Amino acid sequence: MDKQAHFYSADSIQDIDAFVDQAIAMKKNTTSFNGTLQGKKMTLIFFNPSLRTRLSTEFAAQELGIHTISMNATEGWKWEIDEGVIMNLDKAEHIKDAAQVISQYSDVIAIRSFPGLKDRDADYRDEMLQNFMEHASVPVINMESSIYHPLQSLTDLMTIKEAFGEKKLKVVLSWAPHPKALPQAVSNSFLQWINRTGHDVVVTHPEAYDLAPAFTANCAIEYNQQDAFKDADVIYTKNWSSYNTYGQILSEDQSWMVNRKKMALTNNAIFMHCLPVRRNVVVTDGVMDSDRSVIYQQAGNRLHAAKAVINHLLNL
Amino acid sequence: MDKQAHFYSADSIQDIDAFVDQAIAMKKNTTSFNGTLQGKKMTLIFFNPSLRTRLSTEFAAQELGIHTISMNATEGWKWEIDEGVIMNLDKAEHIKDAAQVISQYSDVIAIRSFPGLKDRDADYRDEMLQNFMEHASVPVINMESSIYHPLQSLTDLMTIKEAFGEKKLKVVLSWAPHPKALPQAVSNSFLQWINRTGHDVVVTHPEAYDLAPAFTANCAIEYNQQDAFKDADVIYTKNWSSYNTYGQILSEDQSWMVNRKKMALTNNAIFMHCLPVRRNVVVTDGVMDSDRSVIYQQAGNRLHAAKAVINHLLNL
Amino acid sequence: MDKQAHFYSADSIQDIDAFVDQAIAMKKNTTSFNGTLQGKKMTLIFFNPSLRTRLSTEFAAQELGIHTISMNATEGWKWEIDEGVIMNLDKAEHIKDAAQVISQYSDVIAIRSFPGLKDRDADYRDEMLQNFMEHASVPVINMESSIYHPLQSLTDLMTIKEAFGEKKLKVVLSWAPHPKALPQAVSNSFLQWINRTGHDVVVTHPEAYDLAPAFTANCAIEYNQQDAFKDADVIYTKNWSSYNTYGQILSEDQSWMVNRKKMALTNNAIFMHCLPVRRNVVVTDGVMDSDRSVIYQQAGNRLHAAKAVINHLLNL
Repeated sequence: MDKQAHFYSADSIQDIDAFVDQAIAMKKNTTSFNGTLQGKKMTLIFFNPSLRTRLSTEFAAQELGIHTISMNATEGWKWEIDEGVIMNLDKAEHIKDAAQVISQYSDVIAIRSFPGLKDRDADYRDEMLQNFMEHASVPVINMESSIYHPLQSLTDLMTIKEAFGEKKLKVVLSWAPHPKALPQAVSNSFLQWINRTGHDVVVTHPEAYDLAPAFTANCAIEYNQQDAFKDADVIYTKNWSSYNTYGQILSEDQSWMVNRKKMALTNNAIFMHCLPVRRNVVVTDGVMDSDRSVIYQQAGNRLHAAKAVINHLLNL
Repeated sequence: MDKQAHFYSADSIQDIDAFVDQAIAMKKNTTSFNGTLQGKKMTLIFFNPSLRTRLSTEFAAQELGIHTISMNATEGWKWEIDEGVIMNLDKAEHIKDAAQVISQYSDVIAIRSFPGLKDRDADYRDEMLQNFMEHASVPVINMESSIYHPLQSLTDLMTIKEAFGEKKLKVVLSWAPHPKALPQAVSNSFLQWINRTGHDVVVTHPEAYDLAPAFTANCAIEYNQQDAFKDADVIYTKNWSSYNTYGQILSEDQSWMVNRKKMALTNNAIFMHCLPVRRNVVVTDGVMDSDRSVIYQQAGNRLHAAKAVINHLLNL
Repeated sequence: MDKQAHFYSADSIQDIDAFVDQAIAMKKNTTSFNGTLQGKKMTLIFFNPSLRTRLSTEFAAQELGIHTISMNATEGWKWEIDEGVIMNLDKAEHIKDAAQVISQYSDVIAIRSFPGLKDRDADYRDEMLQNFMEHASVPVINMESSIYHPLQSLTDLMTIKEAFGEKKLKVVLSWAPHPKALPQAVSNSFLQWINRTGHDVVVTHPEAYDLAPAFTANCAIEYNQQDAFKDADVIYTKNWSSYNTYGQILSEDQSWMVNRKKMALTNNAIFMHCLPVRRNVVVTDGVMDSDRSVIYQQAGNRLHAAKAVINHLLNL
């Protein structure tokens, strides 16, 4: 069979700029797409908890006319991923069978599966998504894998374009402290997507917090957060755990928290975060609730991004 | 912005009698409302388990044409409620952000959040519902909060009116024993709603089981259950844990169980309970299964009460 | 009231052959049934985990136009089943009340409830399904009870008929090893259904693994697996735990695993399994992935079997 198209990363979309424009256009004319995919079926599978991803993706599908079922795999499904294994231990089904079975009932399948943050090589092979895509016979949507969160990135680019149009921008991705070890998926994806646009991209973080080189190759790296913020048009803040000392928290240095004083260094930048956010740890209430904060518009765009992706995959 | 209308308690409805009539009329012509809210979206959030509230509220919305998603918050979501907190502990999102984000995807939001039954002042501030309503930008429906269960009360009044029409009644709310400490929400709400009608209301319970004075101010209190039952037209039975010795079980005295002998003291009263009920602890099988028991009709009315509320909020 | 029709076992269907034909016809003209039950409501209740049963049954209903709600009862609902009990222990609701309440909100109810595998008599009374059917006022669909899985069996017969048409067949049900103690429901039901057709049925298993006599009365029993496979047209493989030494694993003898060498003994038989399957324990990869394996078609037929059942019950 032909290779099935999926929505896995920026590489799944040929022309990122045109796709962002299309998503914004779908948002403007949102009701005209309602019911256009009547009778299709979508299965959403969550190996990890979800609030905004579930609501935005499942409602997006429903508005398009699609029947939806969301399943939490958290309480016990374990799928064997390796080939040829004697399956006499804790895994009751092989991913190739699960993918084929779910494909029988679905026109499109969406999956969330976070990294373990223990074994970097395993996480960066992204085996759950990669194997599921290989074996499914219908399109698969990545609702955040070990290393990518493309629905968030499409949303992020929509939000930036809504604010600035075609203007060339200085976009800053800033690490911020957090009490828990978080994945790198949002940051990886944001860099992968924003680097397909013509913007200048600066990543700022404490020295030990380098992201994977593949994602920062086309970015300026700045270890001085205040220097990075100078003249920025967009401040995107996000915590990530260490890539090099994998999955660890090396610093909770509160001097990296984003505040009004730092925002004053920028070119009146908009403030972005994918949410959920820990207020007064990652960013102060003052910045969160300022009139340059676009966090709720950004969250709302998740719905329209999901519609654009589903519409794209089912109309290929 | 204008203050958003919600369905939180009897105070959310201007004319209770007219609203009950309208809900009964919607039940009679139920299919004529089907699909009238096509394309709207409703999110239902459960911090506690639910059977009849989920089925009745979610199906009510679906029959009206609304897309629905139900989420169980039981396995981990914790929302920060206090303002200005440094969120470096167990709560990953502030309720103001959660409420705003969910509002982006929803035309109406329904929430259930039970009391802890440890700290009366905290429970009676009803912080989850109050804060969520304050920060949401769409209508919020109370699916049972720490202190109110208004969907149940609307249902109760519908059931009473269906049985008796405009007749003035003696309505008795009777405490009954139960092995677990239960909230006061159903009882509080029932008294709040029934006191907006012209009926005579008597509350009967062991002396130590006073409800909050705000709810019993317009009721006769009777510590002798048999005296209370005399000439009653409606017996509404419900356990609650102590308000004064907060959240405690002070008595499991089986002599308070409702039985046929006590029902014989009434004016051929109907028997009501919100369910679930522990048979032969709260009430005997004989009363539950008698022809004056309206418990299943009462349960069924939940569907129509929910339709009336959703229809009311989305057509304001 | 009249006795309510349910879908509980082969006995729920008068003419099995005609019903299988009808399900296959519905599959061929699947879209012509879409939306024909618009506005009906279906509640699905799972006391045990489910992947393919939930997806196939719930999507089947949705395609027919039915509103659906799936509820996992795993985290705490316990229903009292015995009559007249003083309910002061762990069970908060009687099954007769639950069944009546859910009936108020539903046009059809589907339930899954597995056996405990400790007490054979209790399991074979199948109390959850039997009591729920007795008390519900709408049709009930068995989504796998302690002893029956009729949606699977209807699917199985569809798959066999699609492969062979009206030809008379030798059908072999073969036990296979498994590391966990599994129910007998799939095997019981398969034998119950296949014995209503004109096929020759052989059951093969290690001597200690007899199924309940009621289900094997019309089958040949063969303790030599290779002899059983000779000239077979259909190999249906399934593990079950012991019926006589109830619920126990008596053997994990790998020589009972189905492999290519054994399949070569057959009359080019198709290979069937209800899934999930443990590869290289129950059956080798070689057989699973061979061109005579119909496992994914079999899984896909679950959707159409469910449609046929729902359509049947709601159009009686």
